[in-house]
Amino acid sequence: MNGAQIVIKTAVAAGIKICFANPGTTEMPLVEALDSMPGITAKLGLFEGCCTGAADGYARMSGMPALTLLHLGPGLANGIANLHNAHRAQTPVVNIVGDHASWHLASDAPLVMDIEALAGSIPGWQRTSSSLDRLSQDTADAIAAAMHGQVATLIVPHDLQWTACRNETICTPSFSYDAIDSGLIAAAAGTLKKGKKTLMILGGKALREDGLMLGEQIRKATSCDLLSDTFPARTEIGAGLPNPARIPYFPEQATETLAPYEAIIQVDTKPIVSFFGYKGMASELISNDQTVINLTPGNQDPYEILKTLADDTGAKTSDISATKEYQPQEEKDLPQEKLNGGTICQIISALLPENAIVVEEAVTSGAFYPIFAAGARPHSLMTLTGGSLGMGMPCATGAALACPDRPVISFQGDGAGMYTPQCLWMQARDNLNITTLICSNRSYDILKIEYLRAGNTEILKNTAALTDLDNPPIDWAGMSRSMGVPAASVSTGKDLMVALNNALQAPGPYLIEMVMEK
Amino acid sequence: MNGAQIVIKTAVAAGIKICFANPGTTEMPLVEALDSMPGITAKLGLFEGCCTGAADGYARMSGMPALTLLHLGPGLANGIANLHNAHRAQTPVVNIVGDHASWHLASDAPLVMDIEALAGSIPGWQRTSSSLDRLSQDTADAIAAAMHGQVATLIVPHDLQWTACRNETICTPSFSYDAIDSGLIAAAAGTLKKGKKTLMILGGKALREDGLMLGEQIRKATSCDLLSDTFPARTEIGAGLPNPARIPYFPEQATETLAPYEAIIQVDTKPIVSFFGYKGMASELISNDQTVINLTPGNQDPYEILKTLADDTGAKTSDISATKEYQPQEEKDLPQEKLNGGTICQIISALLPENAIVVEEAVTSGAFYPIFAAGARPHSLMTLTGGSLGMGMPCATGAALACPDRPVISFQGDGAGMYTPQCLWMQARDNLNITTLICSNRSYDILKIEYLRAGNTEILKNTAALTDLDNPPIDWAGMSRSMGVPAASVSTGKDLMVALNNALQAPGPYLIEMVMEK
Repeated sequence: MNGAQIVIKTAVAAGIKICFANPGTTEMPLVEALDSMPGITAKLGLFEGCCTGAADGYARMSGMPALTLLHLGPGLANGIANLHNAHRAQTPVVNIVGDHASWHLASDAPLVMDIEALAGSIPGWQRTSSSLDRLSQDTADAIAAAMHGQVATLIVPHDLQWTACRNETICTPSFSYDAIDSGLIAAAAGTLKKGKKTLMILGGKALREDGLMLGEQIRKATSCDLLSDTFPARTEIGAGLPNPARIPYFPEQATETLAPYEAIIQVDTKPIVSFFGYKGMASELISNDQTVINLTPGNQDPYEILKTLADDTGAKTSDISATKEYQPQEEKDLPQEKLNGGTICQIISALLPENAIVVEEAVTSGAFYPIFAAGARPHSLMTLTGGSLGMGMPCATGAALACPDRPVISFQGDGAGMYTPQCLWMQARDNLNITTLICSNRSYDILKIEYLRAGNTEILKNTAALTDLDNPPIDWAGMSRSMGVPAASVSTGKDLMVALNNALQAPGPYLIEMVMEK
Repeated sequence: MNGAQIVIKTAVAAGIKICFANPGTTEMPLVEALDSMPGITAKLGLFEGCCTGAADGYARMSGMPALTLLHLGPGLANGIANLHNAHRAQTPVVNIVGDHASWHLASDAPLVMDIEALAGSIPGWQRTSSSLDRLSQDTADAIAAAMHGQVATLIVPHDLQWTACRNETICTPSFSYDAIDSGLIAAAAGTLKKGKKTLMILGGKALREDGLMLGEQIRKATSCDLLSDTFPARTEIGAGLPNPARIPYFPEQATETLAPYEAIIQVDTKPIVSFFGYKGMASELISNDQTVINLTPGNQDPYEILKTLADDTGAKTSDISATKEYQPQEEKDLPQEKLNGGTICQIISALLPENAIVVEEAVTSGAFYPIFAAGARPHSLMTLTGGSLGMGMPCATGAALACPDRPVISFQGDGAGMYTPQCLWMQARDNLNITTLICSNRSYDILKIEYLRAGNTEILKNTAALTDLDNPPIDWAGMSRSMGVPAASVSTGKDLMVALNNALQAPGPYLIEMVMEK
């Protein structure tokens, strides 16, 4: 075996089944190795942001990391925006980045770049392999780091890939949780039982179905309130599932929402802060007067934390699966006319099939989604954790590959969608069961909102040029067909329902452009 | 004035006329400032790689830097691949990157990222502004660094942008060349006159028209041979212009080409090395036995170096403009049938209008271009200096904005084209006179060549999945129309000529997909 085969064999032995790749010359031995090891499939992304975003979506659904295979510094650079989102989602991702042959770096050839600096922009794990004898261990360490919820980047010089190994031992990544902090959990339980006005905020893995159910039982047992992080990496939503409101996006509303509580228990969240810093407002949304107990697990099991908290508060933890029956809505009662964020969210929620996966990157138009989706058939929902646009279509692509039996809805803003439209080609190539729904408001609406929030009253020429997308309008249906995904364009609720029902019944990918009222 | 206005006013005062932008909330004061300062136009890129690549193309043609305005770490990350190309082209580019309000960084809000680490991956100039009083100087320093041929990145925290300045002094960037090294040039002249077998290699700015002409006169005066760098950032080519052959791409041929020379004079080139490091081959393409005199100017004027070298060698330096008359080719004598790299290059060269700008990122299909273009009407030619794909369409967009009176040909590989196709929308929006010619071979052919060079004989499943682009084929004409650029698809020379003549006669953008024979 050569070094490239050692890397791939270590990954396959650890259970990794898929590699999202856009290789170049310096990764060709790794490409060859993908063919020499059964058990791993390579998927080509025509742009690296599609690869890293697909790896994020795949892992959010499967729990297992995917590999990405990226070409030198530029390949990694193109993937960083979605690695940032994966990092903020605590998704396991393992990037393998080729580098020039070690002896070639000093030549400063045209593609020489500081790959380590790039990788270092994403907190997590990174290493440049320097020894063939340690290459399997390096790979196993990268996978272990990923399994701890990190983005891991292993840089493998070209010469290490092509050189034959003396030592063919394959290492196994080791993963285990740390023990939970029972004292801190008991303190949280004490606070919850004290009868003060208490809030529990769930984030991260605590928003998965098991966590939501435990959170709801704790809420019932202690009469606390329950909120969700603003941007869940993955949650389950729909009829019968608890649906804690999300902390509002803008700091004014968030502060108002959080202000009434004497005590706040956070479970698997980051510190609760404003998305952006605004003039005259604090970053922190919780005041110093409020008691905060932060059950952020680090390397502990969030589920075990919640289970212990439930036990400590006397909450019911048996038979807590979702129960409320889904109440179908008749299409005639749904909005038939012009499309806006509200009507779109209502229609999608009503028509959503059983067991769907929704990836929401609809920015302003998606704001209503959690409200309507609460009554939908239960489904998985992923959102934009890191604010870096272009996550939706890649995540949907990865999710469809992780869960081939589940329908995927890629609920997408048009502005954000233009960051990684190349994913449509991946969806066509593998005939993935993804329905992409483009909110075509032909505008960066969030920027207009921020512009007006900043005290401006009139949108002048350059500002309009940087926030309007209507000149020319993008023909999303045409773009979709150009990459092999059949498509339709609609501008009324009635037509959206027809198109969405058709798309959901047909196998394979489909795109619906939803032209919104101005 | 607030900080944002200071930044923009300093840029406008320095002569900067255009800003390629994709802003977010943390850049909104800069967006407002673009509206408050006459003399600068904002152009929206729907993906940041379009902005940085357009800035590269703009500056290669105008000689003046453009601004880019990028949103936080993800915006810069998306722009890095083309900044790498700009760095390798020594193009002046000034990136303005917003950051969170300085006091908000500690919150580790979702979009907090190590922007400095990202900027540091591109050698050049970078600074994070920390004082309102120094903000104009910071901006002027960034512009000055750019004018010295660097990528300059200025990070401006949001709060600095929105705060009113006490000091409204606008600083001016200072730029001057260092004195040339007359002794070294005299030594080079001595070597050239000695009558040994000597080669002169021109790169960088020495490949502009003045440099080429001087190089040709020195060649005539000293009987040396003349070669060009493999990937000119910008050169002039066509009838009457010297057309030094390029150093071959693969190291075997390059070494063979360079081996016969006893002495090699390099003018404004990097060290002559292999693009990639291959097993058993050296990075350096010039052997230690060969005398090398490296007239790489650093901060000297390459033209002055060549002029002095011409004087020292007794070369004629007056009346050296291009003279050879263009010999039109009749269309009936051009290839009428199937399209391949050779026939495509031949047809483009023959039909190219007067004073065109060609941006070539056609990878394998573009290899024949410099041969046929030597007989074309004189034109400017830009190529992929840094090997980071996705440079072509953005550079063409920037070139068209820099030179609105010149027709631009974007000669583009399909694989590379899929990195930044969003540029077509920019071309439609500004009705730019760009004809995009897509070499649709539906394959990463360069990777297949490298795969076979590495000793493989058969392309297996995963390798095919990562190098074939034909399933599904991309309908480039449809994609183009979806972004507002009219288009045609052709598969014969005859049809290409009809489509290209039509495209060149019509104003505004047009795209021709050239489906190549398999």
